[in-house]
Amino acid sequence: MDNRAIGVFDSGLGGLTAVRRLHEIMPRENIIYFGDTGRVPYGTRGRDTIIKYTRQDIRFLLQFDPKAIVVACNTASAAALETVQGEFGLPVFGTVAPSCEKARQVTRSGRIGVIGTAATVRSGVFERLLHRADPSLDVRAAACPLFVSLVENGRVHRGDIVIETVVREYLQPLRDAGVDTLILGCTHYPLLQDVISDFMGGGVTLVDSGAEAADAVRRAVDPAADGTGGTRYFVSDDPRSFDALASLFLSHEPAGPAELVEITDY
Amino acid sequence: MDNRAIGVFDSGLGGLTAVRRLHEIMPRENIIYFGDTGRVPYGTRGRDTIIKYTRQDIRFLLQFDPKAIVVACNTASAAALETVQGEFGLPVFGTVAPSCEKARQVTRSGRIGVIGTAATVRSGVFERLLHRADPSLDVRAAACPLFVSLVENGRVHRGDIVIETVVREYLQPLRDAGVDTLILGCTHYPLLQDVISDFMGGGVTLVDSGAEAADAVRRAVDPAADGTGGTRYFVSDDPRSFDALASLFLSHEPAGPAELVEITDY
Repeated sequence: MDNRAIGVFDSGLGGLTAVRRLHEIMPRENIIYFGDTGRVPYGTRGRDTIIKYTRQDIRFLLQFDPKAIVVACNTASAAALETVQGEFGLPVFGTVAPSCEKARQVTRSGRIGVIGTAATVRSGVFERLLHRADPSLDVRAAACPLFVSLVENGRVHRGDIVIETVVREYLQPLRDAGVDTLILGCTHYPLLQDVISDFMGGGVTLVDSGAEAADAVRRAVDPAADGTGGTRYFVSDDPRSFDALASLFLSHEPAGPAELVEITDY
Repeated sequence: MDNRAIGVFDSGLGGLTAVRRLHEIMPRENIIYFGDTGRVPYGTRGRDTIIKYTRQDIRFLLQFDPKAIVVACNTASAAALETVQGEFGLPVFGTVAPSCEKARQVTRSGRIGVIGTAATVRSGVFERLLHRADPSLDVRAAACPLFVSLVENGRVHRGDIVIETVVREYLQPLRDAGVDTLILGCTHYPLLQDVISDFMGGGVTLVDSGAEAADAVRRAVDPAADGTGGTRYFVSDDPRSFDALASLFLSHEPAGPAELVEITDY
């Protein structure tokens, strides 16, 4: 038993989908969440910048002596995790490897789609991991650069011509390729699952990368014996804007206000 | 005559629309441009964060000993300029005051619309300046939080149902209110002038805030006698991604590669 907290970070608040899942499957764990809202999004930025920001986010969480860190951001997982993983002397879990593992388990046809930010898709890391495990897989990746903005503006509902048009444009090549499994390679995308599923068809299994990261933590980490199952929230922009956006990603209200972090000090 | 350069900054590359205008009307001026591409956008962030970033951007430009600074970002102009304007001992020009002045000159009905980012509209500074000059003006402001993402993804063309739908949603209240003048209170928005003008109707005059800021500089600043009219470009994210986006905002190719800045050092 290990009562130390689990540290979780994301470029913004999409990583709260992983926090929700962690609370469901590990209800006694204390969680420290950092959302880099002063520098979100990461997905449009260059690799060196993403690596720099990822190191600062991890160093901030280290002061709470966590037993593990979850990179609940596909962009950081894809562009930075291989580089920084060994630098900190504790387990660092990303979204990419567990999502690939799950996709390999559920695909029947061997045709797997991946969607993510521009930086995630440019990294090619999903294809590399999938092909390393099984070179016969047919993997198609598509960047969806407008999805994060659309989700954060609440454009997630069936019947909204804006999100439906953009989903069709981005996903048409994957549907045409006949993928039977689609990795939602960004923690914002589960909010689009209705619209995406309508377009892709019911036979396509969606893999939620934040939830898969949480499941990987449960399999690997020594659980807490008597934690309170609480979360402390930290952000790098005005904490007052945290609540409205956080409620998009959590099924409940956040338990307490967010605290402000000067992230460039780390 | 003053041959020192003019410093220009924006949260990203939208401020290049002001640089283009400066080169047109002051062809001998040397310009130093900084685009904070590592932290763009500002328009979704809180006021304190925007003020902090604005101070860093100005301090970076000061090392080039400029004769004036142009805040070619409406979000920074609206949320930070009043606070930081007197701190640096040189003229700092924003987009807001000259845009308000121009709108007052061109309106016939006294009904003026303003569009901008969430932070710009939340600041209320356009309404304050317009009402200070003329309390009888009827000013309507509308936040357009998706416009920057849509422009940066090239969704600027007539016939694109995504941009046309969003333009209609955001601008319908301003059209219904019968404004005859619309301030484009974000340096990204001139790229949407066709779609906006189609929706608002030919009788509505669009005010380009970046161009107005450039005109204000020309009226106030001692011009260069023998500058080369060149620009140095600096960014805070990967300079390799500068060219593609910059060409959206400049009518010509950028004259030379952008250089990387560690902006948090300033």
